[in-house]
Amino acid sequence: MNAEILCIGTELLIGQIVNTNASWLAQELAAIGVDCLWQTTVGDNMGRMREALETANGRADLVIITGGLGPTPDDMTVEAIAQHLGEPLAERPEARAHLEAMFAARGRQLTPSNYKQVLFPPSAELIPNPAGTAMGLAVWRGRGGLMAFPGVPYEMKPMWRDWAGPRIAAMTGATIRSVLLKYIGIGEAALAEQVAAHLARANPSVAPYASNGEVHLRVTAKAADAAAAEQLLAPVVAELSGLEPYYGRDEETLPGVVIRLLADRGQTLAVAESASGGLLASRLTDIPGASRVFKGGVVCYAGEVKTDLLGVPEALIAREGAVSQAVTERLAAGAMEALGADWGVGITGWASGGPGVPDEDVGLVYFAVAGPDGTVHSGSRRCGPRSARETTKHWATQSALDLLRLSMLTRP
Amino acid sequence: MNAEILCIGTELLIGQIVNTNASWLAQELAAIGVDCLWQTTVGDNMGRMREALETANGRADLVIITGGLGPTPDDMTVEAIAQHLGEPLAERPEARAHLEAMFAARGRQLTPSNYKQVLFPPSAELIPNPAGTAMGLAVWRGRGGLMAFPGVPYEMKPMWRDWAGPRIAAMTGATIRSVLLKYIGIGEAALAEQVAAHLARANPSVAPYASNGEVHLRVTAKAADAAAAEQLLAPVVAELSGLEPYYGRDEETLPGVVIRLLADRGQTLAVAESASGGLLASRLTDIPGASRVFKGGVVCYAGEVKTDLLGVPEALIAREGAVSQAVTERLAAGAMEALGADWGVGITGWASGGPGVPDEDVGLVYFAVAGPDGTVHSGSRRCGPRSARETTKHWATQSALDLLRLSMLTRP
Repeated sequence: MNAEILCIGTELLIGQIVNTNASWLAQELAAIGVDCLWQTTVGDNMGRMREALETANGRADLVIITGGLGPTPDDMTVEAIAQHLGEPLAERPEARAHLEAMFAARGRQLTPSNYKQVLFPPSAELIPNPAGTAMGLAVWRGRGGLMAFPGVPYEMKPMWRDWAGPRIAAMTGATIRSVLLKYIGIGEAALAEQVAAHLARANPSVAPYASNGEVHLRVTAKAADAAAAEQLLAPVVAELSGLEPYYGRDEETLPGVVIRLLADRGQTLAVAESASGGLLASRLTDIPGASRVFKGGVVCYAGEVKTDLLGVPEALIAREGAVSQAVTERLAAGAMEALGADWGVGITGWASGGPGVPDEDVGLVYFAVAGPDGTVHSGSRRCGPRSARETTKHWATQSALDLLRLSMLTRP
Repeated sequence: MNAEILCIGTELLIGQIVNTNASWLAQELAAIGVDCLWQTTVGDNMGRMREALETANGRADLVIITGGLGPTPDDMTVEAIAQHLGEPLAERPEARAHLEAMFAARGRQLTPSNYKQVLFPPSAELIPNPAGTAMGLAVWRGRGGLMAFPGVPYEMKPMWRDWAGPRIAAMTGATIRSVLLKYIGIGEAALAEQVAAHLARANPSVAPYASNGEVHLRVTAKAADAAAAEQLLAPVVAELSGLEPYYGRDEETLPGVVIRLLADRGQTLAVAESASGGLLASRLTDIPGASRVFKGGVVCYAGEVKTDLLGVPEALIAREGAVSQAVTERLAAGAMEALGADWGVGITGWASGGPGVPDEDVGLVYFAVAGPDGTVHSGSRRCGPRSARETTKHWATQSALDLLRLSMLTRP
């Protein structure tokens, strides 16, 4: 079965709200084996709604409509569907009862325009809406049909989950399972070449995505039941997660993996950040449970903070420069010592240009990891001179986290 | 002029990512007087991409395409456009130079598949991409045309803003001017009631938006030329920016306003963060020029870091608790003293639940500001026990920044 999602609402077309309904419904469809091939958005305009309905109905088995079920004159979805079906609108007693019960429960007064929400084309089945006055509608046809939901997400979602989703899942008979594999320290094109044979697969399919300094591979299998889908996935996932730059899957993040590795080893971490300005600490403290392994850090923007709080000798800064491998390594060790942690990370760099910064060095970052065995490892990365500050900061934290991850994995 | 936005990417159709490009572009189009009538999304499928291109081209003056410009085999947008135009693909020297310069700047190795990004249909004008390897393309026709951008937002947005947007604005004739006014410390409904008369205006129009702990009002005027539009805006902007919770406009952010106020006064800042975990320092260091006024900070997750680096007496933590007004005020003063700054900020709180944390206290944060006159001001906020860690962290930094801003404004 394939589907088209048709979203109605001028607020979407002028960008006043982001269309989260489309992505939510798309995920729900994928999970029950329905291929969503098209998403279309039109405003509150009868002509274009009719045109979009005709087109969607002509090319998709199932048309899922959101929005335009309200009581105001710009809400025209039910009328457009009735015209599309060639049916008149007629009052539905269950819709009237629902509307009046809703208003009574909220102690509010019904106005004549509210009764617009009790009119439906006679061939439609109504979809209960526990959270609002607008009931949805479904018209089954052939191996699919069309259905309409309110645009308000907290009304639409339970209507889908409790009513429409299970009915459609029962019709598809297919189960989809998908795994997201995550890689760091490699470009999208380089990884795609390395796994080219897999990208040509049909089932499971493998698709690459670049994502903010990482590359992800989505592996998706389709089968008659969950066990068969898992069986298709397993060997491909095993092979692809064995590649060297792989670091985690699904909801795992690079900071999350680092926190987990530290917790597994019963060790603690402290950081010293100049160029990344606190972003590394912030990303680590986004992870639930961070407080058990992350002692804290020092954001050492000013030179004297590096000296006073982290023990970097003034002479070293004067000789090597505040942005240098030597100072970064000393910062990593200084964070470890000053905060009494097992591991220390240091970051310096040029997030923007300024007096005394050569143009080609803007976007250059150094990162270092000091470990419990007394060794310090470090590296550098050029994020490109025209990167935004946020991008340079992010890439600096990615590099530092990956070096820390690899340091832990190679020193068991 | 009217437009259709055509988004390409299977990751959109399976709901892996939310389509923020469509809403962003829709806002940009509205701002220059272009009516966006359709938004369509298709996957990485040549047949459907061709079909969507034909349809969009047949019904819209301007077709704006995002996504599918990458180097991997599933990136087929340029090929689809070339087929649509009936043109072959040919190498463009400026694209090759750009690609090679990008890789050289990042010190990374080009692979053969990267060179896919230098092929374009000959009639296309190329759109510079300062942030990535994929150049965009534009084909002008009649009173519009088609143009394609990468799907990565931080690449697409500057390409639109610096290149495509101004060219299209010049074609539309009507001039739209719009100002975004920003408010902190007031809810959307409360602000909307306060400015109800303005919300009913047609030209300039005033529309409220809630935005991540702030409320914004967009004031938009339409006129024959820029001067007339500015004249319509001026009195409304003057009145609305005189309201008490107003803090800035357009690209100004709360951290940006704080950095500017510090720079104006020639003063410096240091922070001590427990619950916000480095996010405050990171938000401040996103602002260009932060290094001139921001000395740095301490992320004091562990109790001993509060004591050792910031001088909070152990007895005070034992008596009042690590999350308390007294400890937070001492942290603000400790940051100011330890880092030798004019102003100090402290933040503590419960970002998640845990042993010994009453359920109703999850999401509770304290914030304090220590000033050069020796006084310390503080406050607390309940972000709600079901807030995500990131939300609690963000709201804690918003509250602290606003208290610092008001402290500076009231102590000239």
